[in-house]
Amino acid sequence: MPGLTAGQLIQITGAELRGDADCLVLGVAPLDQAVSGQLAFLHRPEFRCYLAHTRASVVILSPEELPGYDGNALVSDDPLLAYARAATALSKSEQPMASRHASAVIDPAAQIASNVTIGANAVIGARTVIADQVVIGPNCTIGDDCVLGQGTVLHSNVALYHSVVLGTDCIIHAGAVLGSDGFGFANDRGSWVKIPQLGGVRLGNQVEVGANTTIDRGALNDTLVADGVKLDNQVHVGHNVQIGEDTAIAACAGIAGSTRIGKQCTLAGASGLLGHLELADRVHVSAMSVVTRNLSQPGRYTSLLPATPHAGWRKNFARIGQLDRMAQRLRLLEKKLAQVISQLN
Amino acid sequence: MPGLTAGQLIQITGAELRGDADCLVLGVAPLDQAVSGQLAFLHRPEFRCYLAHTRASVVILSPEELPGYDGNALVSDDPLLAYARAATALSKSEQPMASRHASAVIDPAAQIASNVTIGANAVIGARTVIADQVVIGPNCTIGDDCVLGQGTVLHSNVALYHSVVLGTDCIIHAGAVLGSDGFGFANDRGSWVKIPQLGGVRLGNQVEVGANTTIDRGALNDTLVADGVKLDNQVHVGHNVQIGEDTAIAACAGIAGSTRIGKQCTLAGASGLLGHLELADRVHVSAMSVVTRNLSQPGRYTSLLPATPHAGWRKNFARIGQLDRMAQRLRLLEKKLAQVISQLN
Amino acid sequence: MPGLTAGQLIQITGAELRGDADCLVLGVAPLDQAVSGQLAFLHRPEFRCYLAHTRASVVILSPEELPGYDGNALVSDDPLLAYARAATALSKSEQPMASRHASAVIDPAAQIASNVTIGANAVIGARTVIADQVVIGPNCTIGDDCVLGQGTVLHSNVALYHSVVLGTDCIIHAGAVLGSDGFGFANDRGSWVKIPQLGGVRLGNQVEVGANTTIDRGALNDTLVADGVKLDNQVHVGHNVQIGEDTAIAACAGIAGSTRIGKQCTLAGASGLLGHLELADRVHVSAMSVVTRNLSQPGRYTSLLPATPHAGWRKNFARIGQLDRMAQRLRLLEKKLAQVISQLN
Repeated sequence: MPGLTAGQLIQITGAELRGDADCLVLGVAPLDQAVSGQLAFLHRPEFRCYLAHTRASVVILSPEELPGYDGNALVSDDPLLAYARAATALSKSEQPMASRHASAVIDPAAQIASNVTIGANAVIGARTVIADQVVIGPNCTIGDDCVLGQGTVLHSNVALYHSVVLGTDCIIHAGAVLGSDGFGFANDRGSWVKIPQLGGVRLGNQVEVGANTTIDRGALNDTLVADGVKLDNQVHVGHNVQIGEDTAIAACAGIAGSTRIGKQCTLAGASGLLGHLELADRVHVSAMSVVTRNLSQPGRYTSLLPATPHAGWRKNFARIGQLDRMAQRLRLLEKKLAQVISQLN
Repeated sequence: MPGLTAGQLIQITGAELRGDADCLVLGVAPLDQAVSGQLAFLHRPEFRCYLAHTRASVVILSPEELPGYDGNALVSDDPLLAYARAATALSKSEQPMASRHASAVIDPAAQIASNVTIGANAVIGARTVIADQVVIGPNCTIGDDCVLGQGTVLHSNVALYHSVVLGTDCIIHAGAVLGSDGFGFANDRGSWVKIPQLGGVRLGNQVEVGANTTIDRGALNDTLVADGVKLDNQVHVGHNVQIGEDTAIAACAGIAGSTRIGKQCTLAGASGLLGHLELADRVHVSAMSVVTRNLSQPGRYTSLLPATPHAGWRKNFARIGQLDRMAQRLRLLEKKLAQVISQLN
Repeated sequence: MPGLTAGQLIQITGAELRGDADCLVLGVAPLDQAVSGQLAFLHRPEFRCYLAHTRASVVILSPEELPGYDGNALVSDDPLLAYARAATALSKSEQPMASRHASAVIDPAAQIASNVTIGANAVIGARTVIADQVVIGPNCTIGDDCVLGQGTVLHSNVALYHSVVLGTDCIIHAGAVLGSDGFGFANDRGSWVKIPQLGGVRLGNQVEVGANTTIDRGALNDTLVADGVKLDNQVHVGHNVQIGEDTAIAACAGIAGSTRIGKQCTLAGASGLLGHLELADRVHVSAMSVVTRNLSQPGRYTSLLPATPHAGWRKNFARIGQLDRMAQRLRLLEKKLAQVISQLN
């Protein structure tokens, strides 16, 4: 990483420069900790206070913040997006030389491109096809008949079952499991009879899957995750779920089987979707909220209860169990009072 | 898989045949995608529309659906159960030849039956006993003094601590952890002092454990999971929990320590049970609902709040914090109105 | 483990002895199952019934329970704490001889102290520094530039990314992932652009991390977990979170990015904290409750809804969606009734 000039960062970020185009930055740092040679950014107003005294060589900020700062600035209407692009360029390490660790166990029938990196003790199954520039971390297990598209990265200890297909430039974080059996059983007089899970899992391009997230294989058809989807840690995706393009799902969310989610949706942390539902594009579900029916309209949906001091909660929440009775009493009062009023007039 | 005739499927499924007993099926497929030589099934009315045009050679359906179809039919009162049995028979691969991968690390004091399959880079501890027809996936770690019953399958990257006992024909999915320490601490003036977790984990026969599910070892006694229990992905089972026969627990559910669950219960996704509770047989807990007290009666229990459009939610949920006051005001109104009415009469 | 005398246990537990100081105990067991030579304890009143007939050689109990028992007793105001110390002493195995399994893959640039135990098929990265008495389980993957303090134990199949720092005497359970990327993206006309996650993860001393728990690395600064923090299984800790000393977090809890938690807090199972919050010391969050705002006062906070029989739930919870209207109707009734009353007087 030999660094980039402010002038080069203009190209990368699409921001406008105020100041010295030849100023060199070697890395990034928070506004309050940056030193000379570093790039910082301001996108939350609570950090504005650090602007006057920052020692960063270049700061990315919005036009509104520019008057409060007299150093080199990259001015952008979306400082976070400009920062994402600049930091990606600055943190891009040179491509490590492709290598296969001697301890990796690779089935002779696997098809592996020439410049692939395979970590120590990784295991790769038969007929699996691995494209150029793929990186497979140590202790990963990849089953038979998988496909890993160009540039896809698996961090360590990832498990792919057989017949899991990943597009290009995906990132799969450690401990994620793709292709485990969906939770499908028939009931025979009280006992569960397993329904074979014969579908696969297909991820599009540029999908990111968080640490210890699980995506089940389909029962007959595949579970589908479209291009650009981002899943955080410990997300559960049931069998035959379909997730539309550019949808983002935060940590600990769970999606029951056969539910279809539209494009550009967001599910906040620990939210849940029941099974066999259909969600339109641009549906946004709040944290710890549960969707129980089809949502055909975009917008934000919520059933989150914010925590309150325990004593007040006890008093108020106990009343929930009386709500139906309260509603009936209210109705009765309205009737009686109407009678009284008509009697009086 | 040489295929099965419709006549053979009668034996396997217990269904009645209408049509050609010699018709051969080689595999299964969804009703709308099946081609000649495939078996399909109909168990949800929304797929009835595909029945007239399916190209499946045989369809499993209920007596009520039979009039709408004139091909070969396996008629069953429970098409899903009949399908589960047929698909299991059709998807049964020949037993792979037992093999121990050269890279597996097996303690010399482990006792391993002759026809066991051990994957690459698996690690097996001392005095662990592994019965016939067990399959251990790549990168699994099995501690000392474990027992794996006949026919049990561990998928890849499973971790068993020491003294974990699995019955026969269990399936443990990738990334599951069995035998980790229970969360037990005493408090010494603000600091936590670890309580050694000295019990084990015992699973019965035909237990299935989902991907990345965790089952903690007991503090002194064992954590117990009875025959036929099915756990989905990312379930958490605390120390000294007991789960009764044929209970099924869906993804992301959590069970706190020392709780005892009866037989044939179901816990839906992301539900939770507090610790030290006792649940009767055939208790059914809805999704995202939390059980906070003993349940001595079978039946369905719920505390799920369905998500609604955010604006309406804000208005209505804000009122929850006023509920106790509202109830008092309602009581006062009732009193005052009663006085008014008695004054009027 | 040659056993300890009751007299030695006085030193270890701080309890007072009633009975024979030379009585030898070799292990621990539950009160109702203990045999001669074992230590038991009583700390929950529901087990008092076992006291009269226990065959334990020594029982730890509170002064209040002493009259009900005439055997050897270790009397403590906190029997659970005394038991934790005694059981730890009794279950302490001799330090296993340090050893590096031949199958472990250790980067030549790693710095590893002499008496470290490294399990089979573990992988250790470049420049990682591992102190005395560290134990690394089989199939663990440790990235580059990590630091593991003295006496820290990693169970099997743990994944540490690069630049993860663990203090002394930490315990990391199987399947835990530390240092995965935080969930940080900017949005470019609907598509997500990854923000490089350039911070690390730092754990203090005596931190315990449960099975399949995930702790993300910071975006620029480190994610910080202070001394004595205990995390249960399947906890999610987002990027740049800070957790104060001796805070305990139960299973399935989730903490969104940049939230700061004080000291000696407890988060119960499946609770959640939204991002960018600040919690004071000694805040206690109930199970399945969600904190949505800063909490500057210690105390207990709750938004848990207890499950009730489904039929009643349907009736009462349906009313929540009518609450705002009910409150308006209540207000109107109060007004009208006041008018009626003033008219009458």
